[in-house]
Amino acid sequence: MKKLLNDPAKAVDESVEGFGLAHPDLVTVHTDPLFVTRATKAPPGTVALVSGGGAGHEPLHAGFVGEGMLDAAVPGAVFTSPTPDQVAAAIEAVDNGAGVLAIVKNYTGDVLNFETAVELADGVEVSTVLVHDDVAVEDSLYTAGRRGVAGTVLVEKIAGAAAARGDDLAGVTAIAERVSSGVRSMGVALYAPTVPHVGRPSFDLPDDEIEIGIGIHGEPGRHRIPAADADTITEALLTPIIEDLRLESGERVLLFVNGMGGTPSSELYVVYRRARRLLEDRGVTVDRSLVGSYVTSLEMQGASLTVLRLDDELTSLWDAPVHTPALRW
Amino acid sequence: MKKLLNDPAKAVDESVEGFGLAHPDLVTVHTDPLFVTRATKAPPGTVALVSGGGAGHEPLHAGFVGEGMLDAAVPGAVFTSPTPDQVAAAIEAVDNGAGVLAIVKNYTGDVLNFETAVELADGVEVSTVLVHDDVAVEDSLYTAGRRGVAGTVLVEKIAGAAAARGDDLAGVTAIAERVSSGVRSMGVALYAPTVPHVGRPSFDLPDDEIEIGIGIHGEPGRHRIPAADADTITEALLTPIIEDLRLESGERVLLFVNGMGGTPSSELYVVYRRARRLLEDRGVTVDRSLVGSYVTSLEMQGASLTVLRLDDELTSLWDAPVHTPALRW
Repeated sequence: MKKLLNDPAKAVDESVEGFGLAHPDLVTVHTDPLFVTRATKAPPGTVALVSGGGAGHEPLHAGFVGEGMLDAAVPGAVFTSPTPDQVAAAIEAVDNGAGVLAIVKNYTGDVLNFETAVELADGVEVSTVLVHDDVAVEDSLYTAGRRGVAGTVLVEKIAGAAAARGDDLAGVTAIAERVSSGVRSMGVALYAPTVPHVGRPSFDLPDDEIEIGIGIHGEPGRHRIPAADADTITEALLTPIIEDLRLESGERVLLFVNGMGGTPSSELYVVYRRARRLLEDRGVTVDRSLVGSYVTSLEMQGASLTVLRLDDELTSLWDAPVHTPALRW
Repeated sequence: MKKLLNDPAKAVDESVEGFGLAHPDLVTVHTDPLFVTRATKAPPGTVALVSGGGAGHEPLHAGFVGEGMLDAAVPGAVFTSPTPDQVAAAIEAVDNGAGVLAIVKNYTGDVLNFETAVELADGVEVSTVLVHDDVAVEDSLYTAGRRGVAGTVLVEKIAGAAAARGDDLAGVTAIAERVSSGVRSMGVALYAPTVPHVGRPSFDLPDDEIEIGIGIHGEPGRHRIPAADADTITEALLTPIIEDLRLESGERVLLFVNGMGGTPSSELYVVYRRARRLLEDRGVTVDRSLVGSYVTSLEMQGASLTVLRLDDELTSLWDAPVHTPALRW
């Protein structure tokens, strides 16, 4: 294993420290316990958004802290939930008196630790939205129910815009739920990642096979198939999404092609091209797009497709200004 | 070799097509010959910027087409210079009557083909700036003189801001030359990339060695060393840059940590942290930062460090608005 790291046990702390040094205008890093907040607090009376989860998925979540998106992000160790005291400290730090929305990817550890954190965060009103957009499997190694994957970025962006326009906690929560219920994802792995403190690939994938429906922690997917071309793989990922969403001709969507960490952006656009054509062939309009490595699995090679059903309000919240290290317009 | 591609011979065309479909508000893709322009032309009388080079370094260059940066980008085949007729067509398409600045990475093929293109682009006044920021080697497989690498992004951004504020061709050229003369880079490879139509890794790197001073086409660097920790590698990259720039205490710089395509962003911040501390230890102030995969070598794992000497004017041009698919503020 060769990586640009020092002591694997300190990798998350050192990376987050560097992240804070590189973006002092946008974020502030807190240690003991570790969490990241906006450098400038949102105005009093604004609902605050907190998310978090295991490290190894960067830029998720800390890269999305800033105006118009998250107020705080809480990184755990690699592929490991943050502790309740970390999450509680973040919730207490960012509450502006209007309550906090916790956005939680559906993994058992995250769900339990956020629940405990909400109990610990004394006097702060917290509502929680679960993201479970992965259509690949119904249950997995780490979840009861579907896993939360790349769709999380869309929940965070759109709910963040709702908070920024002044919606109250019930309103922001309802928007986040609407995104969560209208978004679906599915991914593929070509090559496995290596967790630093483990030192060997997370799973064995033969040189001529790929894993369809992979999770973002190397959890098994639906099935392995012989390595195939991008168009074939794209169709294998998109078809279950379209069916699960019951997308119909005339609908509008946001199409998000996400790189898993080790995939060149040139390949993501080849996937995007095919996915867009397939949607258009069914009469679905791709109204908004996002292409890049936003929810990764260390240096795993592969990609995921995410489709969000759009309406006028969600589109306008997606377009609203955002000012974070990883997403900015 | 497993990649998210179809026919390797069509990979660049398909990727650029997808790129155009994903960013219709920012860019327009022209085929026959292939080049990418801004979706909305700059105002008449504005100097236009054209760059280009082999594909495989995405988002360079097409990702930097848009307001405040490039007016056109010309992709060749993977690791292969674009042809003179492609470059000439791009130059003619974007000239706003105030002349064109061509930004050329110093590779023999690029230099020759841009020279020929300038002769072909009848009636357009063109000045050319070479980027040769790589301190690793004096000559290389593909160059007489130093190679142009990640510093190209800084030249494109800052010269683009000078054009946007209305500088004439001589003025924009002078700014680009100032950036080019004040920027230095050096890179490291942990794992080699695979060129799609070749199908095997570009070079052999043993499991316990890394290549210091690597180029962005897998060209040899300065030397191979045993795999080391991030702090050691960072110092090995930064020291020659500091010496070559003759950086002194009290100076201000932009520090750019660039991923080579297959490196997780979390690792780039570990490198950034150490590089910043090393500069600060010498009394150098890191005034601006950029961290991300902007000049890549397919899915190569590794990173490069780039340092640009700043003054007030270059800092303010760096801060000026930019609105491209890959760089936006």
